[in-house]
Amino acid sequence: MLKTPRCPTGGCHVVITGGAGFLGLRLARTLLANGQLSLAGAPPVAMAKLTLVDRVAPPADLMADERVAAVTGDLHELLTHKDRAAAAFDASVDAVFHLAAAVSGECEADFDLGMRSNLAATQALLEVCRALKTAPIVVFSSSLAVFGHAPGLPLPAVIEDLTLPTPQSSYGIQKFIGEQLVADFSRKGFVRGRSVRLMTVSVRPGRPNGAASSFLSGMLREPLAGVRATCPVPADTPVALSSPARTIQGLVCAAESSDEAWGPRIALTLPALTTTPAEMAAALERVAGPAATALIDWTPDAAIHNIVKTWPARINAQRARGLGLLPEASFEQIIRDYVRENPEAVVLATGGQS
Amino acid sequence: MLKTPRCPTGGCHVVITGGAGFLGLRLARTLLANGQLSLAGAPPVAMAKLTLVDRVAPPADLMADERVAAVTGDLHELLTHKDRAAAAFDASVDAVFHLAAAVSGECEADFDLGMRSNLAATQALLEVCRALKTAPIVVFSSSLAVFGHAPGLPLPAVIEDLTLPTPQSSYGIQKFIGEQLVADFSRKGFVRGRSVRLMTVSVRPGRPNGAASSFLSGMLREPLAGVRATCPVPADTPVALSSPARTIQGLVCAAESSDEAWGPRIALTLPALTTTPAEMAAALERVAGPAATALIDWTPDAAIHNIVKTWPARINAQRARGLGLLPEASFEQIIRDYVRENPEAVVLATGGQS
Repeated sequence: MLKTPRCPTGGCHVVITGGAGFLGLRLARTLLANGQLSLAGAPPVAMAKLTLVDRVAPPADLMADERVAAVTGDLHELLTHKDRAAAAFDASVDAVFHLAAAVSGECEADFDLGMRSNLAATQALLEVCRALKTAPIVVFSSSLAVFGHAPGLPLPAVIEDLTLPTPQSSYGIQKFIGEQLVADFSRKGFVRGRSVRLMTVSVRPGRPNGAASSFLSGMLREPLAGVRATCPVPADTPVALSSPARTIQGLVCAAESSDEAWGPRIALTLPALTTTPAEMAAALERVAGPAATALIDWTPDAAIHNIVKTWPARINAQRARGLGLLPEASFEQIIRDYVRENPEAVVLATGGQS
Repeated sequence: MLKTPRCPTGGCHVVITGGAGFLGLRLARTLLANGQLSLAGAPPVAMAKLTLVDRVAPPADLMADERVAAVTGDLHELLTHKDRAAAAFDASVDAVFHLAAAVSGECEADFDLGMRSNLAATQALLEVCRALKTAPIVVFSSSLAVFGHAPGLPLPAVIEDLTLPTPQSSYGIQKFIGEQLVADFSRKGFVRGRSVRLMTVSVRPGRPNGAASSFLSGMLREPLAGVRATCPVPADTPVALSSPARTIQGLVCAAESSDEAWGPRIALTLPALTTTPAEMAAALERVAGPAATALIDWTPDAAIHNIVKTWPARINAQRARGLGLLPEASFEQIIRDYVRENPEAVVLATGGQS
């Protein structure tokens, strides 16, 4: 069990890197709304302080919460300057969610960027946490992209908890190396680490990003907003997805699980819903009608397809199930949740039961 | 197929890091004696230049060979200073054997040393090779220590080529991360990498080192020299070993195998002979008589046993067999080879057929 939280108030202090990104903001809002956190199986304590680290400042509504602090800047630069790092990471920190990363497409195009933003920054974060000598909880956002296949290098039809990762992208390699670092820093007692292999998250609100998976949100989000979108892979390409809500649930579960419940395997593959762009479009049509699906351009892009096709699509997340983590039952439900949560971004939804 | 070797002479230029260590020297002598090397499946070419990089200079007999050059210094420091790196690594380099490393016991006792000598130096080496823009062959000495078990984290009874490594030492983690880096630098076309998971090598000549496995040579080598030695683990502890000759064979095979023969899995587990200290002592007694085995003190050391017992002892090295790599048939033969090769270090051998 973790010792008493370190904040003078008796509540806990949580840091989120990438805290102004989509997942970071959603996690922040979830933690603040929950109002309390169970630290690695200990009884829940109040959320006393939430530090959001990102290149950009969080939105005003979050900053208005007196529990929220923001540290802005490049994460790697911040972590490798001792006095700057101390602005976010001090001995009061109970848990760190490390979500900041360069995304898959960026890392494949710019090798040095990925090595710095994903590998070097993660290593620096772990060293900063180690130097605190308080063994904070560190939840590392790994990725399904640790699994990849290539000619002569097949993956099993279904990914199991013990499947050997053979990443086929620099992003996947960097995430898998991050898992190894988190595991060893945990074994040495420097941190209490958990690595969570996130699925592609869909439907992401907001704008497209540099991830090769960006279209898996865009092909729903843009048509719902009345905007054209492209699906750059064949319609029958199987993909493994998770909703924003289930993804956040997995991250929080990682911080709240006791060492015993989490077990000695530091990395955990989250559950996924297996679907295809064709099925996703059909679900979109049920939610928003043919006017929405007519906005999807089915235009193959070899560069994106070459990355996406190396990702596995079927996952047997047995350990995750044991922790109570389950995939969504249907992609239609995921779209309906998006419509309900993002009314300002939706013009084409025809409603229907939610 | 590799293009023509880059040396002006038409021969090839090989670099060995850790080139003044036991394996490095043995590899150097083997390559020089062979006189030629087949570069990744290409027709053999003459060994034109062999650069040995190490903290200490190689012995005089090697330096007397006009094909041999030496670069002395700390590898990480050398690699991170561009002008110093160029002394060893220039565009004429066809193949690099990266053997330099801090050993397992050192890395467990001094975390920062291992991160620098094993992780940072390997990353720097790959960056230096990438900067050459010639995609040299890089043979990385990984280790059986990528496999480890711990409470709640069992390994299968036999390690297969696709067994998921879960290293339980910092050394093992650093080697496994090295494998990932070599794989991605290879996938990107920066190097032509092969990672070779070496077994514990026995019998090593010379003096004990900081490796937790050091006793697996010492308990033979010291008694053969008439000196007392300690076995710090229970006599029935199963261990996986390889002879010096078979280990060098594996390294050379990695450099000489074509990309097609090596296949897309960059890391290869070498074959091993599974034995126990009790069986090793019995073999020693057959070679050198009871006076030799009487010199072994069976004194458990929990720190060493705790590392050694996390290593797997049974390996089904199927891919290695496909490349013609086989384990020794008996440990007695390994001792007899040591006696034959190191007459100056042996006082107790009673002879017998070799």
